[in-house]
Amino acid sequence: TGVAMMKFKSPPVNSLSLEFLTEFSISLEKLENNRACRGVIITSAVPKIFSSGLDITEMCGKSMEHYTEFWRAVQEMWLRLYGSSMVTVAAVNGSSPAGGCLVALSCDYRIMAENPKFSIGLNEAQLGIVAPFWFKDTFVNVVGHRTAERSLQLGSLHPAPEAHKLGLVDELVPEEKLMEKAAAVMAQWLALPDHARQLTKTMMRKALLDRLLAHREEDIKNFISFVSKESIQKSLRMYMEMLKKRKS
Amino acid sequence: TGVAMMKFKSPPVNSLSLEFLTEFSISLEKLENNRACRGVIITSAVPKIFSSGLDITEMCGKSMEHYTEFWRAVQEMWLRLYGSSMVTVAAVNGSSPAGGCLVALSCDYRIMAENPKFSIGLNEAQLGIVAPFWFKDTFVNVVGHRTAERSLQLGSLHPAPEAHKLGLVDELVPEEKLMEKAAAVMAQWLALPDHARQLTKTMMRKALLDRLLAHREEDIKNFISFVSKESIQKSLRMYMEMLKKRKS
Amino acid sequence: TGVAMMKFKSPPVNSLSLEFLTEFSISLEKLENNRACRGVIITSAVPKIFSSGLDITEMCGKSMEHYTEFWRAVQEMWLRLYGSSMVTVAAVNGSSPAGGCLVALSCDYRIMAENPKFSIGLNEAQLGIVAPFWFKDTFVNVVGHRTAERSLQLGSLHPAPEAHKLGLVDELVPEEKLMEKAAAVMAQWLALPDHARQLTKTMMRKALLDRLLAHREEDIKNFISFVSKESIQKSLRMYMEMLKKRKS
Repeated sequence: TGVAMMKFKSPPVNSLSLEFLTEFSISLEKLENNRACRGVIITSAVPKIFSSGLDITEMCGKSMEHYTEFWRAVQEMWLRLYGSSMVTVAAVNGSSPAGGCLVALSCDYRIMAENPKFSIGLNEAQLGIVAPFWFKDTFVNVVGHRTAERSLQLGSLHPAPEAHKLGLVDELVPEEKLMEKAAAVMAQWLALPDHARQLTKTMMRKALLDRLLAHREEDIKNFISFVSKESIQKSLRMYMEMLKKRKS
Repeated sequence: TGVAMMKFKSPPVNSLSLEFLTEFSISLEKLENNRACRGVIITSAVPKIFSSGLDITEMCGKSMEHYTEFWRAVQEMWLRLYGSSMVTVAAVNGSSPAGGCLVALSCDYRIMAENPKFSIGLNEAQLGIVAPFWFKDTFVNVVGHRTAERSLQLGSLHPAPEAHKLGLVDELVPEEKLMEKAAAVMAQWLALPDHARQLTKTMMRKALLDRLLAHREEDIKNFISFVSKESIQKSLRMYMEMLKKRKS
Repeated sequence: TGVAMMKFKSPPVNSLSLEFLTEFSISLEKLENNRACRGVIITSAVPKIFSSGLDITEMCGKSMEHYTEFWRAVQEMWLRLYGSSMVTVAAVNGSSPAGGCLVALSCDYRIMAENPKFSIGLNEAQLGIVAPFWFKDTFVNVVGHRTAERSLQLGSLHPAPEAHKLGLVDELVPEEKLMEKAAAVMAQWLALPDHARQLTKTMMRKALLDRLLAHREEDIKNFISFVSKESIQKSLRMYMEMLKKRKS
């Protein structure tokens, strides 16, 4: 059918580790180069979670080299996904904070399970950190400036119904209908001639992609300088402690 | 009353041919230079159709010189209408795809007959072609980035009620009340001092107008290079065949 | 509690005179430099009016030097408020036209008394004048391009329920609950780590602030050249006459 399915399967919470991101980018590149593949549906094989976002352990107590490699992998993933010439549909079948939300925001269409226990948002501020400018730009392009400003400052995680109301996701469906709906949406988008659709997508997204490409090394330096601060390391360690306690 | 009425009357579907566009621009210029004229209501004298958009026969099997002249006329019309110092109200009394939608989007206010059989949208992608950047920018300024991205990629034609919900048109009224409503809206806009209103309009629209003015020749070259492709010519011929069959 | 309260108290209508603006900016600067202060709630001590906007007497029949000083004070107030590192909540307990609306738009969150007799908007066009580009940019960032274009051209004053619907204010509450609600919202925003919230706010607002900083002297010149025109002076005098008659 020309449609690939990518199921995130990195328990317990599909953290975007260096390894995960590298594999994700390679998979996207392979599909991109496979002319038979015209669309990809992204979902999770882990119950209740789409992706928990960037793996905080990659940002704690590591070397400059590691931070550089990690951040380049985050950039690479976004450049490939946001700039994909394929139709990309996120079937958000669980919670999706921070980097997980970015993955969904970078797709062409977002369908979410209508479970109010699942939430989605760029909640970086809650962790004492700041989303980089291209997370913000991607968010603004989906929900507009005002909603983005408020949501980013509050680090909001929006329950599915609220996310839908804000336009953060396009559609809610009962969880058991999620894949069926994703396939139907994909078929609708694939009914268009690829060439015209791809040029249109590029026209809409090129300015953002170019902005990161133009500032990629600067963005890496910013990340390293930020994450190297003792105060930020402390915030991240506290957050990891909290996560551990919550689990046990 | 200082209000002009322009009724598109080029059966069967008010295609924006080179001749039509030239006449449209000249009429706008005359009204613009007539100090007694402060506003213009644009509507159609052809039942069920506002305007079917750019005349595809102008883009098929013609010379480079013809393509150049045609595209310059399309640009000219938009520059005059989007940049008009008059109050411009579109009374959309029929369907309005592609270039027809652009005409409506370029006005200050859009009222549409609340007939769900009438639809409006930039559906270029459906024809295998791509709206130029200034169609896209005009659309984004009306409906925002996300709605524009989705609608342009799908080449959506939105039935009147959906178009209203998306903000593509400002108001729906029963068809028999359309002209009465357009006159009332015009009176409301003309109640403002011209000078302040015109400067405000310029402040909102100048960036877009300047962007095309700065890239006008490049935009013509892009159009020619695009429309000269055999694959595009084939798409357009197929589309015309389909239209002919549908008619008979 | 780390929260300051600023109550505008310059009867009869909290006009933003040179003196008022200077005092407002100094107060904001003091709070900004006071590390114990993390947020400020802005409201009015005058019944039924939040602020009537720029004091027109400062723009009528005065010297170039006065216009320069006045406009610099308007800019200064906006630069301090829009760029404040504190959480800023507007408790809009009355009408708020023009510059009064700008004050509210520059805060992080706007709560308005749900009294339909209270209205808010950038109604400069009604007075025959034009809001400067940074009023417009601030407005667009809150309500989006289309709503701003229409509202600015019509010089609309939106009754509270309409302002809420347009996103011009975030929330409506009964007047007697306004301060309680403002305190609750403030607590919610202050629950975030200051550092992350401030950097996020800067990321969202820096482009606009920089735009005025880059064009500050030019913007003053524009104001002077505009306000010095006899036609504008006449409009402003007529408006003042009308206000006087309305009062008596």
